[in-house]
Amino acid sequence: MEKTKVAIVGMGTVGTGVARLLLDYGDRTARHAGRTLWLEKVVVRDRSRPRQIELPQGVLTDDLRQVTDNPEIEVVAQLIGGLEPARTIMLKLLESGKNVVTANKALLAEHGPELFDRARELGRSIAFEASVAGGIPIITNIGQCLSANQIESLHAILNGTSNFILSQMEERGADYAASVAEAQRHGYAEADPTMDVDGTDAAQKLAILAHLAFGARVHWSEIPRTGIDHVNIADMRYARELGYRIKLLAVARLVPEGLELHVSPTLVRIGTPLAEVRGAYNAVRVVGDAVGSVFFHGLGAGQMPTASAVVADMIDTAVGRTGITFRTLQLWSSQYARVAPRDYDNVPSRYYLRFDVDDRPAVMAEIAGVLGRHAISIASVIQHEAEKPDTAIVPLVIMTHETTEGATRKAIEEINRLECVRSEAVRLRVGD
Amino acid sequence: MEKTKVAIVGMGTVGTGVARLLLDYGDRTARHAGRTLWLEKVVVRDRSRPRQIELPQGVLTDDLRQVTDNPEIEVVAQLIGGLEPARTIMLKLLESGKNVVTANKALLAEHGPELFDRARELGRSIAFEASVAGGIPIITNIGQCLSANQIESLHAILNGTSNFILSQMEERGADYAASVAEAQRHGYAEADPTMDVDGTDAAQKLAILAHLAFGARVHWSEIPRTGIDHVNIADMRYARELGYRIKLLAVARLVPEGLELHVSPTLVRIGTPLAEVRGAYNAVRVVGDAVGSVFFHGLGAGQMPTASAVVADMIDTAVGRTGITFRTLQLWSSQYARVAPRDYDNVPSRYYLRFDVDDRPAVMAEIAGVLGRHAISIASVIQHEAEKPDTAIVPLVIMTHETTEGATRKAIEEINRLECVRSEAVRLRVGD
Repeated sequence: MEKTKVAIVGMGTVGTGVARLLLDYGDRTARHAGRTLWLEKVVVRDRSRPRQIELPQGVLTDDLRQVTDNPEIEVVAQLIGGLEPARTIMLKLLESGKNVVTANKALLAEHGPELFDRARELGRSIAFEASVAGGIPIITNIGQCLSANQIESLHAILNGTSNFILSQMEERGADYAASVAEAQRHGYAEADPTMDVDGTDAAQKLAILAHLAFGARVHWSEIPRTGIDHVNIADMRYARELGYRIKLLAVARLVPEGLELHVSPTLVRIGTPLAEVRGAYNAVRVVGDAVGSVFFHGLGAGQMPTASAVVADMIDTAVGRTGITFRTLQLWSSQYARVAPRDYDNVPSRYYLRFDVDDRPAVMAEIAGVLGRHAISIASVIQHEAEKPDTAIVPLVIMTHETTEGATRKAIEEINRLECVRSEAVRLRVGD
Repeated sequence: MEKTKVAIVGMGTVGTGVARLLLDYGDRTARHAGRTLWLEKVVVRDRSRPRQIELPQGVLTDDLRQVTDNPEIEVVAQLIGGLEPARTIMLKLLESGKNVVTANKALLAEHGPELFDRARELGRSIAFEASVAGGIPIITNIGQCLSANQIESLHAILNGTSNFILSQMEERGADYAASVAEAQRHGYAEADPTMDVDGTDAAQKLAILAHLAFGARVHWSEIPRTGIDHVNIADMRYARELGYRIKLLAVARLVPEGLELHVSPTLVRIGTPLAEVRGAYNAVRVVGDAVGSVFFHGLGAGQMPTASAVVADMIDTAVGRTGITFRTLQLWSSQYARVAPRDYDNVPSRYYLRFDVDDRPAVMAEIAGVLGRHAISIASVIQHEAEKPDTAIVPLVIMTHETTEGATRKAIEEINRLECVRSEAVRLRVGD
């Protein structure tokens, strides 16, 4: 049987999973690729570190040149996180003639244009299925399977850590800090979970999907984003009363005014597929003008789901499918941007608003007055009795009809200054 | 820009949708394929019939030779239903050097081995994304995206007509006949819906998926199947009491004893993704040993969802991806069968049983006695008062612990002969 020599750079969790699939299940890749993917080298920084997998004699090395100088190695899975030295290593691999597979979304979101242009110049390819939504093959589905469609919108849960935390809060009534600790115990959150919970990770993945689906050239840092770190148990309870769950949604929607893009905790109607995504799962709902709505659900992270995506990319690259896709799609080409992001202030949505207010007459009128002046129309109101019996402060929850990001932001700034309002107002989008 | 000449054979609903995508949205296919898909010919039986789309001058013909004799046409979407002349036309197209795209699952389920062997001999390819689950790209996902996995199981809703009918019964309390009529009014069911409601259509699609995922060479007619035509409103109500919905599930599961394959109305736990599939939608849950569970949901039929899959296949074929996949996967190769179907009688499952019995003492003991002799253990029982006040007949619903198809079939045959049992017992599988 034909043999394609491959290498892995970086032997963390995912790298170990990839090595396991290649070494222990070689028959499988042979069956699906019509050839053996032969693991020739694994490059690590520190050869002396204990490994969870036994590699054949001579495979492990701490010298990248053992890969770059070996013309027989055709495909390299570059599985180092972060920006540097990941970027430099990626360029070296491309320049030495390798086709690269990566799971590093931060690297692509930050340096995609440079890396893809360089790969094109050199006649090489970059595959990146594992960079977004882990085990869900969303890159191939959008870039290949749905290519007869104009994608109209993407609504996605792309950060498993945030979804696990929100699920804990929702299902166990645990508060935010306790839920973060629980996520850390399960290995779903880093010691410092900032990038996950503040929306950065989801925005980086959304930038990649928006590029693929819409030809948008947007840097992830330009995507308006709100994290889950201020989501409150009380708001989850009110949302449920109204028939919603709170999810960290990444949204890209094409409208005549441009591409609407944002990441934010959003009220999603209970019973719809996105609302039912639990724990560390990811999900993506894609609407295409021909296919209608297609929904994907699977594990967004973890050793073997991510390794599944990396090895699929290695097979695609070895047999030549990736090269074709890479050439035809012209990804991150500096030649053109097909669509511009829409001004965030004018993006329409319904909103959930919560104000902690004095429990006295006329408060409702004051707040409704401000909303009215900003042309924000009220759809429903919940006002319960005070949560703490000794205080004279009560939560006032308002669902608006469709309005805009800008109008609600300005109205809230004004309402926050009212004397009857006792803490910063809560403002969350309501999904459709 | 490079141009690939293509043709369509058969101008029914799907053919019209494909022509629309190629003619009205050529820029899109150009963008995703890096070339124009140029619609050179459309072959129909009767040129004089009115069409829903205006074709450019000279495109419409009733002579297949205008395609087979034109060496410039590289890709042909063969969109004729049924077995003949579809099979003969497919062979003629392959023999004249065309790569073929088809949506005809019956043709593949019946003649797959012959057609694929012939295509291989001739160095041509057959793409068939649209043959299963319409707009859900399940063929590419299993054949390409999940190729690092050993697929362990598929649980799928593959017949939109049946799912629409069951949803009507569930949501509106309409009986079977009224729900069939409603499906016909919506265009979801044919005048004669037999193939949809008796499980034939789902079994044909399951045969294709089982081949792709497990290398099983099984003829669809060998797949044990039960349709929905005997599903009763009362059973839906009892199922709901127990926390389940009834869905027509197509199941393929790899176990040490072989491949478990069947199509049957099954109790699916409410809240799980498959239970929430409504209306004419399809869904597939795939479990792979690396990726875990991945769930796909989308429209399983209809003009544009199916056309979306056909045109994606035409693009894949034009750019060369299909040819690679076709060569590496060796589909329907007569060379080998990787797995044999498991004896159906020994397939384990929990069961839902309903007996209409005399409302008198000792009946429960008699029935439990028969179940006990067949080593079938009872998990729970529902017995309500008589539905019709004047009769002395009551429904007795029993959920079993795990047992086998064979044991329950034999026990039911015996119970049906008891004097206290007044009508044919109902027996439905319970999903996990």
